[in-house]
Amino acid sequence: MFQSRYLSFARKEAPKDEETKNAQLLVRAGFVDKLMAGVYSYLPLGLRVLRNIETVVREEMNELGAHEILMPMLHPKSIWETTGGWSSIDVLFKIQSRTEKEYALGQSEEEVVTPLLMSRVNTYKDLPVAVYQIHWKFRDELRAKSGLLRGREFLMKDMYSFHENQDDFEKFYMRAKESYLKIFNRLGLVAKVTEASGGSFSQKISYEFMVLTDAGEDDILYCPSCDFCVNVEITKQKEGELCPKCSEVLQQARASEVGNVFDLGQKYGKDFNLGFIDHENKKQYPIMGCYGIGISRLMGVIAETRHDEKGLIWPKNIAPFRVHIIALVGQDDAQNKIIMEQTIRLHDNLQAEGIEVLCDDRMHVSPGQKFAESDLMGIPYRLVISQKTGDKIEVKKRNEQEINMVDFSEIIQYVS
Amino acid sequence: MFQSRYLSFARKEAPKDEETKNAQLLVRAGFVDKLMAGVYSYLPLGLRVLRNIETVVREEMNELGAHEILMPMLHPKSIWETTGGWSSIDVLFKIQSRTEKEYALGQSEEEVVTPLLMSRVNTYKDLPVAVYQIHWKFRDELRAKSGLLRGREFLMKDMYSFHENQDDFEKFYMRAKESYLKIFNRLGLVAKVTEASGGSFSQKISYEFMVLTDAGEDDILYCPSCDFCVNVEITKQKEGELCPKCSEVLQQARASEVGNVFDLGQKYGKDFNLGFIDHENKKQYPIMGCYGIGISRLMGVIAETRHDEKGLIWPKNIAPFRVHIIALVGQDDAQNKIIMEQTIRLHDNLQAEGIEVLCDDRMHVSPGQKFAESDLMGIPYRLVISQKTGDKIEVKKRNEQEINMVDFSEIIQYVS
Repeated sequence: MFQSRYLSFARKEAPKDEETKNAQLLVRAGFVDKLMAGVYSYLPLGLRVLRNIETVVREEMNELGAHEILMPMLHPKSIWETTGGWSSIDVLFKIQSRTEKEYALGQSEEEVVTPLLMSRVNTYKDLPVAVYQIHWKFRDELRAKSGLLRGREFLMKDMYSFHENQDDFEKFYMRAKESYLKIFNRLGLVAKVTEASGGSFSQKISYEFMVLTDAGEDDILYCPSCDFCVNVEITKQKEGELCPKCSEVLQQARASEVGNVFDLGQKYGKDFNLGFIDHENKKQYPIMGCYGIGISRLMGVIAETRHDEKGLIWPKNIAPFRVHIIALVGQDDAQNKIIMEQTIRLHDNLQAEGIEVLCDDRMHVSPGQKFAESDLMGIPYRLVISQKTGDKIEVKKRNEQEINMVDFSEIIQYVS
Repeated sequence: MFQSRYLSFARKEAPKDEETKNAQLLVRAGFVDKLMAGVYSYLPLGLRVLRNIETVVREEMNELGAHEILMPMLHPKSIWETTGGWSSIDVLFKIQSRTEKEYALGQSEEEVVTPLLMSRVNTYKDLPVAVYQIHWKFRDELRAKSGLLRGREFLMKDMYSFHENQDDFEKFYMRAKESYLKIFNRLGLVAKVTEASGGSFSQKISYEFMVLTDAGEDDILYCPSCDFCVNVEITKQKEGELCPKCSEVLQQARASEVGNVFDLGQKYGKDFNLGFIDHENKKQYPIMGCYGIGISRLMGVIAETRHDEKGLIWPKNIAPFRVHIIALVGQDDAQNKIIMEQTIRLHDNLQAEGIEVLCDDRMHVSPGQKFAESDLMGIPYRLVISQKTGDKIEVKKRNEQEINMVDFSEIIQYVS
């Protein structure tokens, strides 16, 4: 992709109406644009990142054996009345049509997925089953001020699993937990698993996957030595007290919830009166689990936790491009011709190897501006070609200071 | 993909609440599920088709030089007031939040894209520019009864182009028209280009891309010999009269609009007072074009126009799978073992070549049911392995009657 033809929305100044670092950086670097609080457009660079995060999550969900589907966002009022959500969920957006019909905008999809899946589950032999989608959701938030961390419109992966009994749910949950930790790891994040309160309906404990960041909206108490971690909302323990598991001193930190799991019990099967025939030939309601990952929120959390004073620092596998080639031209036309030929050849060679590359081939932009924009965008490898670099390429990793001179023949291996 | 582990939503009977063939077939074959009139879930098979259509459209839009972005669905009331749409567009869904803030659900995105793009257009040098998205839209339809052809929630590709003057728009439109015809051709459809009325705001003629089908909601008058074609809404000509271009007898037919183009003139630039400096150093408003393609509607139109009494007949490049392997086992365990080994090897070989393959490896389903389900799904190539087929594979194309025996070594070439 040549930058002379690429549509950049980068700005010289950070936006004044954003309070959090993720929004300031993502807007300034041209990844997103704010339409209103909690609602953003995804621009060419931002859409690439969003799709890359989706891909990581999709691969792990498929690996887990869940089936991808896509459920509607516009819901009839009736299904939300069946479960009680119409009157009890305050973030549910409600719509009245011109014929006075009422709808809700999906903020979660239990009301859709339960009838959909249970219509094909007759006996225990049809269980367990898990489906997921990567789709947009809506919440009527009172305040949305944290950039991509708390949206009125946001992209989520939500998975729903159906089980014959609690044991089977627990087994699946343990596998899902491993998938989640693998996902966050692949995204360059360290997530802690906390116990939290169960949300609107569930009487049971739920699990939250938390990433430490000051822009988060939760406070967690965690042990620096073992995996003990709780949301402060549900504990009487305090910072400085001893870990109940290993007696280390507990620490408190601000965190953002990037994933969660709810044990829904039999609520939704019962609400819709949709059951199955169990091993003992009796009608039974399924145990259901719900597993969320905030895809657009993850983009915000990564921006929030991985940046420096110059800009964003994307991990390799979700960066909008793996490599940023910068051609530095001067006053000498003959030299410039050689530089541009080298640049285009390098671009084409990398692209032929399946490496995503952005190439700053602009002729009338200063080196300083090119470098500044490159740092702001946060592409992992910066490759400079200039009159000085001769038969080598000047390579710098975004998150390191060191500059290396690398042979053209060795560059693909270097950035792979 | 092995069918023993695949999540099928196929039904024995067609749904009783669907009037059109596309919905009857797509629901029965388990591609979609109706949540309410005009609102569907996309199930594993249906989601694959939707993504395949998206890919064809995306490739051609990128080829045209348009930049992919993603704009919000939840819009503030203010932008729709600026353009007058808030009070004049009857299909606009309106939402009141719990704090009495009002929003609209996007049914088109001129109100978002104009401020977004014009914020970076300073002079004529920044033009022309075109952006597109593939995203969900909402319309408050009075009646939605044609399956995927008229949705309250539907997937569209919408592109917006910005030009210095009318000439430049016309040039771009001609290129976009060629892209559109190429897209419909790649999807196995023949589309006619009609002139139609300009929609809510535009005073100008718009263009519609029409596919002939009785389930459509438009009537067109076309010439069987030349490219003359108009929507009957905007002409006084009648069926049986002579073509004004070539004097052939005009025919009338029912059609579905799968794409459209609107010449928006300067309306949106003027409404938002967002202009640029032109060649003569004067402030000017951009000429804008809007170009839609109904992605989910296309899925419905293809189902509507390509099926027989047994089921769907997908074109190769958008079918959920290219190949359907069917293993027919019998009573002889030793034979069955050989058949299943051959089946798995064939599946793995095809998959290794990047050919998308569904493999019916179910042991306790009759041959009759396997064939019936395969025909219903409409996968282009059916490959049967049984005790009878020996060292060959029995191959049948979904849209042909002929059965061929093909060597294992030649099968990849055969289905490519």
